[in-house]
Amino acid sequence: MNRLPDYDQLPPGPHGGRLGWGLFGAGDDLGLVNLLTPERVAEAAKLVRRGVGFSLDVPHGTFAPPLNSARGNPRHHVIAQPGGIGFDDVWDNVYPQAGSQWDSLAHIGYTREVYYNGATAEDIRAGRRNTVDGWARHGIAGRGVLLDIPATMRELGRDYDPGETVELGVAELEAARELSGVDYRTGDILLIHTGFGSWYRDAPPEVRKALPRGLRAPGLEHSEDVCRYLWNAHVAAVASDTFAVEAWPADTSEARQPFGFIHQMLIGSFGMALGELWWLADLAADCAETGVYEGFLVSAPTQAPGGIASAANAVLFK
Amino acid sequence: MNRLPDYDQLPPGPHGGRLGWGLFGAGDDLGLVNLLTPERVAEAAKLVRRGVGFSLDVPHGTFAPPLNSARGNPRHHVIAQPGGIGFDDVWDNVYPQAGSQWDSLAHIGYTREVYYNGATAEDIRAGRRNTVDGWARHGIAGRGVLLDIPATMRELGRDYDPGETVELGVAELEAARELSGVDYRTGDILLIHTGFGSWYRDAPPEVRKALPRGLRAPGLEHSEDVCRYLWNAHVAAVASDTFAVEAWPADTSEARQPFGFIHQMLIGSFGMALGELWWLADLAADCAETGVYEGFLVSAPTQAPGGIASAANAVLFK
Amino acid sequence: MNRLPDYDQLPPGPHGGRLGWGLFGAGDDLGLVNLLTPERVAEAAKLVRRGVGFSLDVPHGTFAPPLNSARGNPRHHVIAQPGGIGFDDVWDNVYPQAGSQWDSLAHIGYTREVYYNGATAEDIRAGRRNTVDGWARHGIAGRGVLLDIPATMRELGRDYDPGETVELGVAELEAARELSGVDYRTGDILLIHTGFGSWYRDAPPEVRKALPRGLRAPGLEHSEDVCRYLWNAHVAAVASDTFAVEAWPADTSEARQPFGFIHQMLIGSFGMALGELWWLADLAADCAETGVYEGFLVSAPTQAPGGIASAANAVLFK
Amino acid sequence: MNRLPDYDQLPPGPHGGRLGWGLFGAGDDLGLVNLLTPERVAEAAKLVRRGVGFSLDVPHGTFAPPLNSARGNPRHHVIAQPGGIGFDDVWDNVYPQAGSQWDSLAHIGYTREVYYNGATAEDIRAGRRNTVDGWARHGIAGRGVLLDIPATMRELGRDYDPGETVELGVAELEAARELSGVDYRTGDILLIHTGFGSWYRDAPPEVRKALPRGLRAPGLEHSEDVCRYLWNAHVAAVASDTFAVEAWPADTSEARQPFGFIHQMLIGSFGMALGELWWLADLAADCAETGVYEGFLVSAPTQAPGGIASAANAVLFK
Repeated sequence: MNRLPDYDQLPPGPHGGRLGWGLFGAGDDLGLVNLLTPERVAEAAKLVRRGVGFSLDVPHGTFAPPLNSARGNPRHHVIAQPGGIGFDDVWDNVYPQAGSQWDSLAHIGYTREVYYNGATAEDIRAGRRNTVDGWARHGIAGRGVLLDIPATMRELGRDYDPGETVELGVAELEAARELSGVDYRTGDILLIHTGFGSWYRDAPPEVRKALPRGLRAPGLEHSEDVCRYLWNAHVAAVASDTFAVEAWPADTSEARQPFGFIHQMLIGSFGMALGELWWLADLAADCAETGVYEGFLVSAPTQAPGGIASAANAVLFK
Repeated sequence: MNRLPDYDQLPPGPHGGRLGWGLFGAGDDLGLVNLLTPERVAEAAKLVRRGVGFSLDVPHGTFAPPLNSARGNPRHHVIAQPGGIGFDDVWDNVYPQAGSQWDSLAHIGYTREVYYNGATAEDIRAGRRNTVDGWARHGIAGRGVLLDIPATMRELGRDYDPGETVELGVAELEAARELSGVDYRTGDILLIHTGFGSWYRDAPPEVRKALPRGLRAPGLEHSEDVCRYLWNAHVAAVASDTFAVEAWPADTSEARQPFGFIHQMLIGSFGMALGELWWLADLAADCAETGVYEGFLVSAPTQAPGGIASAANAVLFK
Repeated sequence: MNRLPDYDQLPPGPHGGRLGWGLFGAGDDLGLVNLLTPERVAEAAKLVRRGVGFSLDVPHGTFAPPLNSARGNPRHHVIAQPGGIGFDDVWDNVYPQAGSQWDSLAHIGYTREVYYNGATAEDIRAGRRNTVDGWARHGIAGRGVLLDIPATMRELGRDYDPGETVELGVAELEAARELSGVDYRTGDILLIHTGFGSWYRDAPPEVRKALPRGLRAPGLEHSEDVCRYLWNAHVAAVASDTFAVEAWPADTSEARQPFGFIHQMLIGSFGMALGELWWLADLAADCAETGVYEGFLVSAPTQAPGGIASAANAVLFK
Repeated sequence: MNRLPDYDQLPPGPHGGRLGWGLFGAGDDLGLVNLLTPERVAEAAKLVRRGVGFSLDVPHGTFAPPLNSARGNPRHHVIAQPGGIGFDDVWDNVYPQAGSQWDSLAHIGYTREVYYNGATAEDIRAGRRNTVDGWARHGIAGRGVLLDIPATMRELGRDYDPGETVELGVAELEAARELSGVDYRTGDILLIHTGFGSWYRDAPPEVRKALPRGLRAPGLEHSEDVCRYLWNAHVAAVASDTFAVEAWPADTSEARQPFGFIHQMLIGSFGMALGELWWLADLAADCAETGVYEGFLVSAPTQAPGGIASAANAVLFK
């Protein structure tokens, strides 16, 4: 694939929006991660100047109670080796999506029946297609670019509360890009710092406890415009410090598909890697201080056969 | 710490060998990972030339039955979101040490009572010292250097079976280093490819099934010479494709401490990061083909509070 | 203990209500289960006439999503013995309180600080006092007596919806007892059939899905009168087909203690065994048909060292 | 089924021995548990004289390391309700077969391909046939009869070590029955006390640690005679204090089928419930003291859909 078509050149999808399937082959399971070519990795590695690495994963158990009450937090047992000279350990109840994570292309479909590039729910249950181990084998590394939303909102003179629903449209994303001083390059990994992560860290216990019953967060606007913008930027991945990348709540009803819940477009149609609940606050502070909003991002997804999601295991080097 | 002392300059330890404690401060929990400074990371990143990344983790469940029968393999559940449009997943029985992993400085002590830098077993149970989350926060990245043992043995004209106990002494390690054409630099991450990983992959089911009852593998010689060699190379970490880095079986009896089981020296005295069960075969093949035995190694240890070990989550870029 | 004092003869408790501590010794961990003496077991066994056993446990996974969103349902793996001639299995995420269960005397305290008979939270964490294994060793068997609330409400000409909050006071319990034609005997195990179990079974998916966010159920009235009534009946245990035995929601605020949430009285002060989410519908139908409301109840609590709760593992023989 | 045929009247099975299939219907999943009719339960309940109950389950974690190294012991987490007034708990890694348990008819087949009454491995994986929940719904209760092997061996003047392989043939079983003074009745639950349980309890740590690598235990002889004897006694179930009921090691090779490993006959052909690792020492002591070797046995198997095994959850009342 020498050059990706523009969004409006893509064929229309049967359930609305345009369809990004088939660009990397009929059996492709990797989606836009295919854009992370050796040439782009080598180019991105040149962004390592100071040698400072920012770990982008939150510790296990950071979100308590879990934001999605159908999930739980990891349980840890430290084991003394019987008669032995040391310790072992084991974890149970590890929901990758309860912490810093990648949604694989098996997580959400373009529709309820069909996933990225035509995979079926049965393909996914069987671990045959779209699962996260494909990305683990391929690797996810490239140029990471940070968009700093709280700083942008200040710049724009807007009130902004990262604990509320705020829809970030093309105007806001462009303003953030301009503030960062970067141009997009094909294969970029976009990091959207909304401030939700540090808002949560500082929230009082009663707010954290009530949150799962009324989830709200800033994020991508539910619109075709935002989808077009991200596609045309030809980013490989978008990660954010919220639980959904897109603004929440979404509208998952049939009537509003596919833009009511743009996971369906970004994952299901585009094959884009979405990262959620990443820790971006320290990186954002460094970007603001240094004026450098790009770096070499390396993630080592878990080698999890049939996995729906993976820990982010991500570091950005500047 | 401008420059580390030589091994023979270290103070003698009360249980034998020399003691590498206190060099990074009395309360230090990170050990030789402290050597991975921004300057060294920036230098190592320059080794990314082709942009090719080698994932150094094996898939979950690779070793079945588990090599250590006190551990098990991860169990996976794929969950259909009820009434929903996608999938979630959850893992149980995740023993980091059953797959590609880092031993933290909480894994094995210098003696049964005391761990790296004077931490106690109680400190470790309580998650107060030496646990793997310290490395996750600091990050593990630097120059990776591969020693290719099967190639070295062929060069030396020796019979060699990676399914048997073979003690690799200073002579063998030096021969491997010479074959690789590299000099050690302070903070290197040494990757010892013994061939055990691919031997296991190709072993018939009955051999795999019997292995846990009579574990054997090539690895570091049980000697002070090897400890001195590694210390004086000032490597930060040593990872291998075997389950113990050192030759197995070790001799954990009191009489042979601390060189019967050199985990006690490498982890407990030196504070060295040991990586086990890494997948090095593909990387070794590439090194042989290209003649380049070094690269930029990035690992993102799991943000596991109180963790004894972590998945390797490691990639080497060349 | 020849004869238990009446409720009004008990000493007043420092946080309200009367205190049932010390009647079976200062170090007693079993509470009213002590009333299940061999003589009473032998007497109750004579109630087995037809030889029909009613299993009182619901299947794993009956309540989905779990009624308490901090819990989950068991996860099951069937394992083919490698190269073997059969199957093994393993369960994870087994929350005893997500299904038919006994609350031990370690579950809820008389106050936040102190549990039945003066045990502390630290005693319970350490598994030293009040945990469910005491009952497993002692055994729980005796005369089971069913109170049929829906039938009683019909008899009383009252509207009744087992999916709503209905407070069952002394009048309702006495009416149910009269309908059943039984007198209480010391050591009885009272089974309160509210109809919640079959209401849940028949509820549409959307009602089940919404229930955890607004839990309601019929059950014991939040009053001292009901506590006095149960104590004076000298029952050893009360089990019901709801998740709380008492009407829900309770009021757990300080101001309403200890009768806003009578778990604090029944468990924390009386040392009474509470059974929750039992399956009583089939038994109730048989009682209505035969006019016999009593039987020999046998439960084998799990031998779970330090356990807070146990599966009911209960059968009633008639 | 008025009366079961004798063993020699059963049709020969295609892999040797005789086949007990079809006696309770072509689709039957319960096997000899069908013999536990209300009439027999009512009769057995009359054996409750003193009202003393013997719990027949060992505590979680009794066998450490697990006897079968492919299994593990349960892991327990006590959870403080956040901001709350009590505790909850959860268990992971619960292998029913690591403790006191029932093997269901899904555990071992008559051959590798076919299970009791013609069920296939696929039926079992899918939870369609022979799984333990059928017994949970039916209930397991009846007359329990104890055979005391150590006492019998003393009576016979034989050396006997319950930590060694000892094959118990018809002569030994008959001698034990005579010592107990009981006659078998159809539907009995036979309890074979070999002394293994207390031998293990008293074994030093190094013996326990080595045991999984060389499992040995007394138990049923590997012979058609023993199968014929048990069938003709028309017992519904046989439980023992060892891990296999039959003497160990068995011979699972094709050449010795089906009597080298009589699980294949007892479970796969007869549909007999086998109980393993039950705690029989206290009961045996009471039998010896009182001369009464029978009682009312009640087990409440776990309501585990698709379960291969279940905790015993068993009590014998005398």
